[in-house]
Amino acid sequence: MEKKEHISKAVTGRLPRYYRFLCDLEDRGVERISSKGLSEKMGTTASQIRQDLNCFGGFGQQGYGYNVRQLKSNIAEILGLSEIKTAIMIGAGNMSKALVNHFEFRQKGFNLIGIFDKNPALSGHILNGFPIRHIDLLDEFCRENRPDAAVLCIPKKEAQAVADQLVRLGVKGFWNFSHSDLKLPKDVAVENVHIGDSLMTLCYKLESK
Amino acid sequence: MEKKEHISKAVTGRLPRYYRFLCDLEDRGVERISSKGLSEKMGTTASQIRQDLNCFGGFGQQGYGYNVRQLKSNIAEILGLSEIKTAIMIGAGNMSKALVNHFEFRQKGFNLIGIFDKNPALSGHILNGFPIRHIDLLDEFCRENRPDAAVLCIPKKEAQAVADQLVRLGVKGFWNFSHSDLKLPKDVAVENVHIGDSLMTLCYKLESK
Repeated sequence: MEKKEHISKAVTGRLPRYYRFLCDLEDRGVERISSKGLSEKMGTTASQIRQDLNCFGGFGQQGYGYNVRQLKSNIAEILGLSEIKTAIMIGAGNMSKALVNHFEFRQKGFNLIGIFDKNPALSGHILNGFPIRHIDLLDEFCRENRPDAAVLCIPKKEAQAVADQLVRLGVKGFWNFSHSDLKLPKDVAVENVHIGDSLMTLCYKLESK
Repeated sequence: MEKKEHISKAVTGRLPRYYRFLCDLEDRGVERISSKGLSEKMGTTASQIRQDLNCFGGFGQQGYGYNVRQLKSNIAEILGLSEIKTAIMIGAGNMSKALVNHFEFRQKGFNLIGIFDKNPALSGHILNGFPIRHIDLLDEFCRENRPDAAVLCIPKKEAQAVADQLVRLGVKGFWNFSHSDLKLPKDVAVENVHIGDSLMTLCYKLESK
């Protein structure tokens, strides 16, 4: 697959959404779709779609459109979803339960391999098949299993210290639900899920309508 | 307060993050901060901060910086956080539990007034002080209480129908955790929390490091 060297952050930022729509189309048995058809579903323009997808080489065919399965698999490859990475989860509260029980990590490129919590009363409990381990076992576990990423579902005031510990243990990516911005080395990836910011944005949208 | 007529979406999109940092500063007893000091905390540039905040009139003072409490309260006013809106929650699963138990709705501009679930076995259960009502009572409740917004914590395949029903009942905003993009009238506000997109983005970042 031909790739342009420097793909803008804006384009790569839109790829997960393309992927999501293509999964839906495939689930509904759609085999091919035009840029116009896709743009109508996604609420964007056909030219935006052609421009975005051209960045990764010519997937579409004039007069035929895009092969849904092919395009989906190409985007999966670009996103790195096919090379499954390992992740651990820190915190075993309600947010963790919501994620572990209802969220398909593997489909998004990750294999969950362990859950840790500082509450000793939770140690040994099982969360959707995963035994909860005490946080004191984190060092040993990471040295043995070398997880690529960590999901932080812990309070703000604990997040930075745990992140620092995990960086020392070789963790290279964080999915951060802790309502705080982490200070991390440049070579460590982070995705913040700032749901509070999202609700304030809704408040603003309601206010300005 | 002087406001420019057309403030870009990019700027308003950054306001929740400013608000979050200012809350942190206030909690730590910081009374004033320069654009440089704030930019260092936020990992952005001082000129970006000055530019953004100038859109809403001159809050900062040369040589003094920003008064943290004042700036926070101005941004709260712009975001509409002080005019508390009412919200209902649809779905009483783990994600709802995580939100109801750990998330401060009021601080983000919303007062949660009801929780609904289609599972009759949950009716009457209490979630952090809120009685769970059966979804069949939704119409009556909305007609009586006129909620401004709804939090959707239900599966993708149920989300659109419930959203349509709520729009008919006068709900003007949606905080959508259903992993799907809703088709809604133009005058209805929506904020999607697409956590799957976020995890795929992390996967991509890990892949490209």
